[in-house]
Amino acid sequence: MKTKSFADMECSIARTLEHVGSWWSLLIIRDVMMGRRRFKQIEASLGIAKNTLASRLNQLVDGGILTRVPSSDGSRYEEYSLTEKGRELAPVMIALSQWGDKWVAHPGGPPFAFVDELTGEELSQVWPRRDDGEKVKLDELGLRPLNQDPDHNPKEQKR
Amino acid sequence: MKTKSFADMECSIARTLEHVGSWWSLLIIRDVMMGRRRFKQIEASLGIAKNTLASRLNQLVDGGILTRVPSSDGSRYEEYSLTEKGRELAPVMIALSQWGDKWVAHPGGPPFAFVDELTGEELSQVWPRRDDGEKVKLDELGLRPLNQDPDHNPKEQKR
Repeated sequence: MKTKSFADMECSIARTLEHVGSWWSLLIIRDVMMGRRRFKQIEASLGIAKNTLASRLNQLVDGGILTRVPSSDGSRYEEYSLTEKGRELAPVMIALSQWGDKWVAHPGGPPFAFVDELTGEELSQVWPRRDDGEKVKLDELGLRPLNQDPDHNPKEQKR
Repeated sequence: MKTKSFADMECSIARTLEHVGSWWSLLIIRDVMMGRRRFKQIEASLGIAKNTLASRLNQLVDGGILTRVPSSDGSRYEEYSLTEKGRELAPVMIALSQWGDKWVAHPGGPPFAFVDELTGEELSQVWPRRDDGEKVKLDELGLRPLNQDPDHNPKEQKR
């Protein structure tokens, strides 16, 4: 399991993983996206220990991904809601889900599909595209180093 | 940390997380995508313990995400290469990276951007879309339960 912090790494993938927290955190975010907004609902869905869930929820609230809101039905139970920052993890969740549907689906088939609620249509595959909307083939994907602070990496400057 | 297996869960997100393995595994996949194909290169990039790295690499090979290939320069070191299954994790990696660029970027700015190698252009944001290519707004995303009983006709629904 995780043995050091990724937070000092520059890479945004590493920083996202560090910030989001753990596999459990992604499943908690999934549950809230699916409408399970209360501690007990998430606990029942994940079969997770109370103290683990409490600590993951605190981390997600501290990180600004979830926020605590009063219950929607006036009861005394607080609920969890996704912030904009949390909602914008949807492309990550959908990409994970679609990959799983294709490569490691449950023998009974996947239990749900993401749809556009306006049309009821299933989403197309989340895929890298150019600005004009054209899909990019996997073997045509590349990485370009970005100019950071010029003092940041003097060794590179000298080349 | 992970305290139970997600593999018996039906959800494809949970199944993907279980199958891929851990945060480290995603960073290993990122490294191989970026051209770090040898054990020593990945070890140096991640600062990961040798035994942890060896076990994650074995898991990724067993899972059919990475494959071992002879070195590209004829030396005796084996290299790791992504299978098609592994390459198709690119949308997940890019979605993680773009979220990180926006929400938790390194103070010096992100170190690289994903581009279309044909044009050199940065990719647009990986985003859920309908079949016609139109982006779906986050508040218009929905989930539809799928009928998992094969005797039922799922195609009754009109498009």
